[in-house]
Amino acid sequence: MSTNKIKHIGVFTSGGDSPGMNAALYAITKFAEVNDIKVSGFRKGYEGLIDGDLVPLKSHELQKITQKGGTILKTARSKRFLELEGRKKALQTLKANNIDALIAIGGDGTFKGLLAFSEICDIPFIGIPGTIDNDISGTDYTLGFDSAVNTAIENIDKIKDTAESHNRVFIVEVMGRDSGYIAIHSGLVVGADAVLIPESGKDFIYLLSKIKDYESEDAFLVVVSEGDEIGAELVASKVKEINPSLDLRITKLGHVQRGGNPSALDRMLGIRLGVAAVKTILQGKKNEMVGILNNQLHLTSFKEVVKQHQVNDELMELLELFGK
Amino acid sequence: MSTNKIKHIGVFTSGGDSPGMNAALYAITKFAEVNDIKVSGFRKGYEGLIDGDLVPLKSHELQKITQKGGTILKTARSKRFLELEGRKKALQTLKANNIDALIAIGGDGTFKGLLAFSEICDIPFIGIPGTIDNDISGTDYTLGFDSAVNTAIENIDKIKDTAESHNRVFIVEVMGRDSGYIAIHSGLVVGADAVLIPESGKDFIYLLSKIKDYESEDAFLVVVSEGDEIGAELVASKVKEINPSLDLRITKLGHVQRGGNPSALDRMLGIRLGVAAVKTILQGKKNEMVGILNNQLHLTSFKEVVKQHQVNDELMELLELFGK
Amino acid sequence: MSTNKIKHIGVFTSGGDSPGMNAALYAITKFAEVNDIKVSGFRKGYEGLIDGDLVPLKSHELQKITQKGGTILKTARSKRFLELEGRKKALQTLKANNIDALIAIGGDGTFKGLLAFSEICDIPFIGIPGTIDNDISGTDYTLGFDSAVNTAIENIDKIKDTAESHNRVFIVEVMGRDSGYIAIHSGLVVGADAVLIPESGKDFIYLLSKIKDYESEDAFLVVVSEGDEIGAELVASKVKEINPSLDLRITKLGHVQRGGNPSALDRMLGIRLGVAAVKTILQGKKNEMVGILNNQLHLTSFKEVVKQHQVNDELMELLELFGK
Amino acid sequence: MSTNKIKHIGVFTSGGDSPGMNAALYAITKFAEVNDIKVSGFRKGYEGLIDGDLVPLKSHELQKITQKGGTILKTARSKRFLELEGRKKALQTLKANNIDALIAIGGDGTFKGLLAFSEICDIPFIGIPGTIDNDISGTDYTLGFDSAVNTAIENIDKIKDTAESHNRVFIVEVMGRDSGYIAIHSGLVVGADAVLIPESGKDFIYLLSKIKDYESEDAFLVVVSEGDEIGAELVASKVKEINPSLDLRITKLGHVQRGGNPSALDRMLGIRLGVAAVKTILQGKKNEMVGILNNQLHLTSFKEVVKQHQVNDELMELLELFGK
Repeated sequence: MSTNKIKHIGVFTSGGDSPGMNAALYAITKFAEVNDIKVSGFRKGYEGLIDGDLVPLKSHELQKITQKGGTILKTARSKRFLELEGRKKALQTLKANNIDALIAIGGDGTFKGLLAFSEICDIPFIGIPGTIDNDISGTDYTLGFDSAVNTAIENIDKIKDTAESHNRVFIVEVMGRDSGYIAIHSGLVVGADAVLIPESGKDFIYLLSKIKDYESEDAFLVVVSEGDEIGAELVASKVKEINPSLDLRITKLGHVQRGGNPSALDRMLGIRLGVAAVKTILQGKKNEMVGILNNQLHLTSFKEVVKQHQVNDELMELLELFGK
Repeated sequence: MSTNKIKHIGVFTSGGDSPGMNAALYAITKFAEVNDIKVSGFRKGYEGLIDGDLVPLKSHELQKITQKGGTILKTARSKRFLELEGRKKALQTLKANNIDALIAIGGDGTFKGLLAFSEICDIPFIGIPGTIDNDISGTDYTLGFDSAVNTAIENIDKIKDTAESHNRVFIVEVMGRDSGYIAIHSGLVVGADAVLIPESGKDFIYLLSKIKDYESEDAFLVVVSEGDEIGAELVASKVKEINPSLDLRITKLGHVQRGGNPSALDRMLGIRLGVAAVKTILQGKKNEMVGILNNQLHLTSFKEVVKQHQVNDELMELLELFGK
Repeated sequence: MSTNKIKHIGVFTSGGDSPGMNAALYAITKFAEVNDIKVSGFRKGYEGLIDGDLVPLKSHELQKITQKGGTILKTARSKRFLELEGRKKALQTLKANNIDALIAIGGDGTFKGLLAFSEICDIPFIGIPGTIDNDISGTDYTLGFDSAVNTAIENIDKIKDTAESHNRVFIVEVMGRDSGYIAIHSGLVVGADAVLIPESGKDFIYLLSKIKDYESEDAFLVVVSEGDEIGAELVASKVKEINPSLDLRITKLGHVQRGGNPSALDRMLGIRLGVAAVKTILQGKKNEMVGILNNQLHLTSFKEVVKQHQVNDELMELLELFGK
Repeated sequence: MSTNKIKHIGVFTSGGDSPGMNAALYAITKFAEVNDIKVSGFRKGYEGLIDGDLVPLKSHELQKITQKGGTILKTARSKRFLELEGRKKALQTLKANNIDALIAIGGDGTFKGLLAFSEICDIPFIGIPGTIDNDISGTDYTLGFDSAVNTAIENIDKIKDTAESHNRVFIVEVMGRDSGYIAIHSGLVVGADAVLIPESGKDFIYLLSKIKDYESEDAFLVVVSEGDEIGAELVASKVKEINPSLDLRITKLGHVQRGGNPSALDRMLGIRLGVAAVKTILQGKKNEMVGILNNQLHLTSFKEVVKQHQVNDELMELLELFGK
């Protein structure tokens, strides 16, 4: 398809919502309008594609809500789109509305869905990585991660006030599914005494060694990632085995990390990736995720996007260092 | 004891910490200094009285930390002070340091301790109500309550972003022990669909009625108080009985509500009550808690201070109204 | 007019906007709906009344924006309503839309407008005091004041960080027109070295005395109210006369104090006053402003509402004390 | 000097303070301690070096204040250090205290001072770029920039509330001296209608063209950088020439942008650069500034560090695009 045929772009948000998605919608729409392209937003992720639930987007209105958390298009996980039947209905929707290209903001599951869809639909699909977990290859930051970390540290700062007032042990659980990014980025910078992430099995040992010597003349703060083999309760039970008399408290920050006004970095990331997504379409490309890698725009083919659990070496070294 | 003999006031924080305690310490010290009285702070509540662990306080330094959450004097619950032996040691500390009067910032348990102490010590004791739960009679606001509610609503606002993006049911648990003040003050003002507090048994019924009709075309937000007969898990289990297919999430805000920079109201309350405490001593009174009732300074004898669970009629009426 | 004829209430916001107005709109609409009354909102204050620019309000939608600063109805100052001609057009709008009662959220000027309007229109008018300046008689708090003070102190806290890092003199100007409420409520609680308000002429003298002795081994923070005979520049020029070598900085917080998410107190105040306004209409009253005085609902006739500049005695005493 | 002789590192903060400096002090001290190196902090920048005003730093204490804005070491500009006489005194201080290496956190002026100092002192000097202006070559981010931008956007978001309530034109001035980074990073992401920076002379023209057509049926937001040839007043005067009847307001955010708790990014940057600074010393290097360029640690010789005014091409393109 030649790029001069692009008259109408569809966009949707899918998977977990994350702060900055609305800023990306603003940028997509603004840049499209400048290029005489109209933009429609599908509601509730793939569900809106299947059901033909779409709304026209105007940059003039989106400009007012760049600071709004969540996604005004709503998001959902779609079982129907996993079936060929669902994808065929989505194709009909695109044809019926003369959609020439499609931009999806979501995680690796979202891009896998587009890849399956591309077997029956040949318009360009472009992805923007949006998830607070920062667990997608091909970009240094995913949309929403920086906001989630800022929310985490603001809340952990509050917990430190009360922990230090009581000389208590606090175990704070942050999000991240199987990735330790939020834990390490929040735990290190709040001055935690221990940071436990899925990537690092030996952490338990050093924590337990530290907590054994702990004299309770000060607060002791543990930041731990959620996860099957980790998480606040598990850590608490191990700590209590070592030192049953500790005055220990647990707080799981939970879904507050998903919401709130996006940080400056996430809003700018949304704007940069939104513009890049439209540009990439205009360059005639398809089935690519736009990302920022080492400060440069970077494209990753949907086939190569993988879920990335591992934090980098520098962070692992810092983690080890600050745990001493 | 004639008031012109007051040369040295002791102060301590006890029970749970709450935002605004440091602002109160500033005001106590500033007003004492203006009256040529020196102030010493006992660390870790009654423990510091027993152990003679005290530090001189200077308003010039406290002035810099009015915005700091928690208490720089630290706080603790003291088992030893429950024993006569402990109180006798505390008396020795007061005598050894020439303390002429004592101000305690804490909850009803703290004041009960002072009452017991007054049987063997006849210097003036004055209390300042400090707890985020707002469950003390004789004052409209306790120190820290307004900050805790503001922390709660800022976090619930974030949860609303993600709840609305997914059309999910969220059950958010706030603090309050057996009091529903935080739940009602935060739940009503964030526009919750239901607010459940210990004081109101019938709430479950109306919630379950609403949730039965819930069509999941929008978010549904429940704010619930912690407590033995209430709390997020209990509510969630009842909701799931009614409607097992709901996409339901729980967040327990936890100890973040105890910390953080105090709100404007709490800092001003700390200043007003801190000055009032010293004034009350200078007026020759003892065994009184200072509070603000209907916008006026109000004294309540320690004997009459009770734990107050019941929210007032106007709030109960609002609760019922907004649950419709 | 008998109350059982109230089927349709009109509401508008007028004068300066203030945080909490949207929460009040939510409460008005919710309580009206429960009483089978519909609500319409006039846009841009009196301008919307004159031009017949109104929108239906639904509590289900307003529930989602209780946290939003400003006013979704927009506000304006209306020259046309000062003329009889304008008020006659407004009357036609009310009749054409079958409006049975009118609620205005605004300041003393707004209520004066309603009083003039009542000469030609006999439906009930009820006012809700909304202004960040807290300068209206008949209520302890005006809607928006607590939010403005919280915004002021959060920003002054930031300025303290840099002031203390440099041992600088900072003069921070806050809003308040001719009232010193914001200055005193923010200045005292951030631990300012001097707080200057219009009500207190002698403040200059004590400030200049303090600043003369100032050795620049620490930060020195002045919080000053805006105003013709006061304000940051005037204070700065006087300070420089006394001590020309001082490293002095000025920051005027400005309109940031008008916006932002309302505080917990302001949202609850909006809800309480919103419900009270509708109740007052249902009780058959008219030309009254609803307020909260000493924690109780209080009505003040529009004729008796006055602009109140004077801070109360307790605050003046605190101001003097903490300036020592 | 062989690195195994490093037993004692001195550190100081110089020039304007910026959020994240305390986190950097924590990291420097922690990593030094792990390597059996003690750390002393000089107070008030070069003044402390000259006067021998130093304090021992302990990571255990610094861990508690990673969230604190400003610098606990205080900072100052030093005229005395510009003279050889002053530098000789500083040399004596270093010798008297057995300082083996020196780390400075500051701007390009700070590093120029170190370069001059290196002529008479041959211990290793390492620099960390700390300034909110982001105007230093050799690093993508300077310490404090991300926090300043976040403070700016939080305040501009508040201003938007009131601007939209009144359909007013607002001109908001942000910091940046001769650099437009804060303006562009804050203005773009809040959805400003125009962003004016020193780097872009033609902006005035497009602004004036837009404002000419402005019908005042909405808010109009301009974000402008401070500077001699720019700034809010100048812009306001030009706008008023074009359209004298506009309801226009100015807010200069001022020094609030310098303070406040550092953002997550700035705390992590402080930690990464703090560790890198000590590592660089241990590698036997000297007279280098550590930075993060394209996500990698990058060293720039003090001689090559320059003040960088120019925003990059991608940002300039975005600026032009979103101004359309």
